[in-house]
Amino acid sequence: MEKAKRTDVNTLGEFGLIGHLTEAFAANQKTTLKGIGDDAAVIDAGEDAMLVSTDMLVEGIHFDLMYTPLKHLGYKSVVVNLSDIYAMNGMARQITYSIAISNKYSVEALEELYAGILLACEKYNVDLIGGDTTSSPKGMTISVTAIGRAAKDKIVYRSGAKPGDIVCVTGSLGAAYLGLQILEREKQIYLEAPKVQPDLAEETELIERILKPEARKDIVEYFQKNNILPTSMIDISDGLASELHHIAKASNVGLYVEESNIPVGQNTQLKAISFNIDPTTCAMHGGEDYELLFTVKPEDLDKVKFMPDLYIIGDITEASEGVKLHTSGGKIHDIPAQGWTHF
Amino acid sequence: MEKAKRTDVNTLGEFGLIGHLTEAFAANQKTTLKGIGDDAAVIDAGEDAMLVSTDMLVEGIHFDLMYTPLKHLGYKSVVVNLSDIYAMNGMARQITYSIAISNKYSVEALEELYAGILLACEKYNVDLIGGDTTSSPKGMTISVTAIGRAAKDKIVYRSGAKPGDIVCVTGSLGAAYLGLQILEREKQIYLEAPKVQPDLAEETELIERILKPEARKDIVEYFQKNNILPTSMIDISDGLASELHHIAKASNVGLYVEESNIPVGQNTQLKAISFNIDPTTCAMHGGEDYELLFTVKPEDLDKVKFMPDLYIIGDITEASEGVKLHTSGGKIHDIPAQGWTHF
Repeated sequence: MEKAKRTDVNTLGEFGLIGHLTEAFAANQKTTLKGIGDDAAVIDAGEDAMLVSTDMLVEGIHFDLMYTPLKHLGYKSVVVNLSDIYAMNGMARQITYSIAISNKYSVEALEELYAGILLACEKYNVDLIGGDTTSSPKGMTISVTAIGRAAKDKIVYRSGAKPGDIVCVTGSLGAAYLGLQILEREKQIYLEAPKVQPDLAEETELIERILKPEARKDIVEYFQKNNILPTSMIDISDGLASELHHIAKASNVGLYVEESNIPVGQNTQLKAISFNIDPTTCAMHGGEDYELLFTVKPEDLDKVKFMPDLYIIGDITEASEGVKLHTSGGKIHDIPAQGWTHF
Repeated sequence: MEKAKRTDVNTLGEFGLIGHLTEAFAANQKTTLKGIGDDAAVIDAGEDAMLVSTDMLVEGIHFDLMYTPLKHLGYKSVVVNLSDIYAMNGMARQITYSIAISNKYSVEALEELYAGILLACEKYNVDLIGGDTTSSPKGMTISVTAIGRAAKDKIVYRSGAKPGDIVCVTGSLGAAYLGLQILEREKQIYLEAPKVQPDLAEETELIERILKPEARKDIVEYFQKNNILPTSMIDISDGLASELHHIAKASNVGLYVEESNIPVGQNTQLKAISFNIDPTTCAMHGGEDYELLFTVKPEDLDKVKFMPDLYIIGDITEASEGVKLHTSGGKIHDIPAQGWTHF
């Protein structure tokens, strides 16, 4: 069929591939305020705007049912989509949930999954308004679309950072990645010796971060209450490094990050060392943290300085300065862009 | 894991399963005007409402790449979603498009798929505003969300039909089902004798109906121009019988259909006979026609009587009358509900 030319999908990378495939598409509708290229699309809805984001999760790629309880999967699959709405400084209101499953799954298994979906809907106050349920020859594929809302003048894009702005990040980074390493290790042990019972009590925090992450709705609420409007924002799904590059590229700026200011929790540090991985690497390239990375104007420093669970990690510079890490050892490095890619 | 109880997903049927899984979910957001249960969900957007519909298409279940060109697949996957927006009497404006693919697909194959998506976006005047592209261990899964808009007082639900209303259907029915039978037959012939070249010239119309269906945007435009507001509407994706039951159930009415008035094209009739299938069965249970089934008040009869490509097939009755077919032979039958289900 394709003897003339066959380019492997891996050659372009995920973002390169999407860019290539969608370059011919134009936004012709006057209600399309922002199309492809941010955490969520933006549609005119009168005074407000509607935010729309969608994600697909595939068994064997994004989740492994050997160690992912279905209730957790239901919960997480909703939360990671809501995170994209919060990353636009909006409030998530509705979701659609579609699932393709092979008939190896029972009604009871699906009930578990939907119990997790319900828990997320209740906790984040969103309505399930639609979806599709269909069969698949093999495995499970989930597609969630999150719909949110924001006042038009409060929407925060990736593209608004300016030189001099302060780079902030919430929560702590790298824990989800290490949680995944623990689960993968236990899976191997189980496959080799199914009767060994693991003791994961000490590792609960890290495992929870990968199996049951939370989205930072609280941060967006804090922004509203304290009249803070970030100049740019993105959620950390692919790792800090990848998101820093997205902000730098979309805003046409450079930036630097102080390694010593990157928030890495104590459990993450200890576990990283035991796995012989640099903790900063976990934060930079681990992914799945679902924290928020954002920038504020320098005059807003006082507003964010005492914000709970908030870390000031660097500054925005001119584009020519590149994306740099000031290491704890006093060196300056380029931050490579790659997060984790699934292809 | 589930030794206590294991209910097969097939026991409930697609609609039963969705109903069961989502019964605990409530619509708490005041912007959620209609959640699960119609062709699209309805969200408040100021003067207008936003319509949201989503579908999942799975290789080996909804499409067979042995006889489905990727460009056609791209086109169809968009069109079938837009059809749900038109079924609410709205205009589709945006889509998101997500795809999970194994690495057996090349960039060139994806370019073909996206060429079809682009064609549909241009023809139906919708913007591609987002999506997700990810890998899959095997095969292809597509998830499309269509977003549309309608004035709040012009939205047509499945639930508005009243006894005495006239039942109408657009276009012709059953062709897509026969197109599928032709393709399946050719696939078998090919698998047994790969060198036989089929002559499908006479069957182009039927094959086009399954591979490259169109959605009835023109009908919704006609309604607007001629000030017609149906009392209920649904698109015909699972077969006329299934959709008649959806209208009857949602509106709490009965209805009857005159078999002789069901529009079945000449090619469909001839091919049905050659396949030894009753043409009415093709129309009733074939599915994938993407025509519109709707009802109007009796006083609107004059408005629809001369509408192009429109057929008056029956009347709405009291719920106690059931869902009936008046056969060409003068008999009265119950119309069974089942469309085609994929589980």
